[in-house]
Amino acid sequence: MSRVLRLLVAYDGTRFCGWQRQENGPTIQAAIEDALRPFAERPTVFGAGRTDSGVHALGQVASVQIGTDHSTDIIRRALNVSLDRDIRVLEVADAPKGFNARFDAIGKTYRYRIATGEIVSPFAHRYVWHLPQPLDVKAMHAATAALLGRHDFSAFMSSGSDVIDTVRTLDRADLRADDDELIFEVHGDGFLRHMVRAIVGTLVDVGAGRRDPATMHGLVDARDRAHAGDTAPAQGLTLVSVDYPSP
Amino acid sequence: MSRVLRLLVAYDGTRFCGWQRQENGPTIQAAIEDALRPFAERPTVFGAGRTDSGVHALGQVASVQIGTDHSTDIIRRALNVSLDRDIRVLEVADAPKGFNARFDAIGKTYRYRIATGEIVSPFAHRYVWHLPQPLDVKAMHAATAALLGRHDFSAFMSSGSDVIDTVRTLDRADLRADDDELIFEVHGDGFLRHMVRAIVGTLVDVGAGRRDPATMHGLVDARDRAHAGDTAPAQGLTLVSVDYPSP
Repeated sequence: MSRVLRLLVAYDGTRFCGWQRQENGPTIQAAIEDALRPFAERPTVFGAGRTDSGVHALGQVASVQIGTDHSTDIIRRALNVSLDRDIRVLEVADAPKGFNARFDAIGKTYRYRIATGEIVSPFAHRYVWHLPQPLDVKAMHAATAALLGRHDFSAFMSSGSDVIDTVRTLDRADLRADDDELIFEVHGDGFLRHMVRAIVGTLVDVGAGRRDPATMHGLVDARDRAHAGDTAPAQGLTLVSVDYPSP
Repeated sequence: MSRVLRLLVAYDGTRFCGWQRQENGPTIQAAIEDALRPFAERPTVFGAGRTDSGVHALGQVASVQIGTDHSTDIIRRALNVSLDRDIRVLEVADAPKGFNARFDAIGKTYRYRIATGEIVSPFAHRYVWHLPQPLDVKAMHAATAALLGRHDFSAFMSSGSDVIDTVRTLDRADLRADDDELIFEVHGDGFLRHMVRAIVGTLVDVGAGRRDPATMHGLVDARDRAHAGDTAPAQGLTLVSVDYPSP
């Protein structure tokens, strides 16, 4: 019996070298594949977002083909028993044949947190970029407008990516200030390598007065990574959720 | 010039062997004393609550006598630069001569979090006791009544304490259910060794149906640690705040 499972996964990425299995350190993919061993000999888990080292997830979605007929309840419980507590499988469900969490995803929501106060709470420091300086939130908000819609986002893609089609559509880019925190949330049909973090780095340039929000349109159009801001640190980023077509 | 400073301190206690300096591992007191070295040769820091290994703090208060004339702003910033990010000094203020954070405290608030769902978020697991079972919150609430007021709390004091006077007054013991979490908050003029955790262990016995809430008065009166419940795990406990007489 061959089934495809859909997993909803949350993780604190602090102690992991990102999603994707690699030789040099623990990854989320490897941890889940290892935990699946009782149910599949050499499982390959596909993740919707291949989050970088240090990036967190509240609602990562993954898929895997397995040959067991155990209930999804049993599988979820077994996975959570063997996984590190920094990774939790929130849901396990049977998916339609051929479902692939990576290739079938049609949208993703990412959140980026910036701590702007002098002091970061010991309970938050793993999840924010600490930037203790005044930021012009209004200017940053104005700058987000240039990002909305369908664009070639090459200006915000790190080198080393093998993606050919660099056109993506962003339909939401919210920025809200909450006490000593600035929270950026973005939704789109897909994201290039380091794209959210490069956007955040660029918005911070705007907020700090180093870049005019009016230059954002030109920046996007120029499609040159060298023109955009630095890539913001990974630890401030969280993959919030992934969308799929309704069944 | 000799001054007494009052520090407001928050910490994630996960990686520390509690407040009090000891040979066998890192402690909050030792970390703060080490960070104070530029300002005092052999500083001794007094903490209002000598929290156990793994216990957290949102508002621990500490005092220290130093001989420097640096501004409190400079001292706070310097401490936070050298301290591990799991410890933050939120405030530094000059205190009246003779102030001692431990001996002058007249009240403390502690919070204890119990996660009752099947799955604990990767972002919460360091701060809760995971107890995935139904608990009768109403019965637990009824049981808290016996704790309020002035009592000899020996029934909830761990052995190994050198305290002679075991009478304390509790004026608040709240229990609230919040999604998959049960939050117990208690305020009193002082707490014996492991007292909050022994109370929580006993309340959980009540919530699980292993103990009748009506027996709580007798339990307190018997003053026998053997009659109360187990000591709840340290990681669910947080020292929220400490009270002092108004100046």
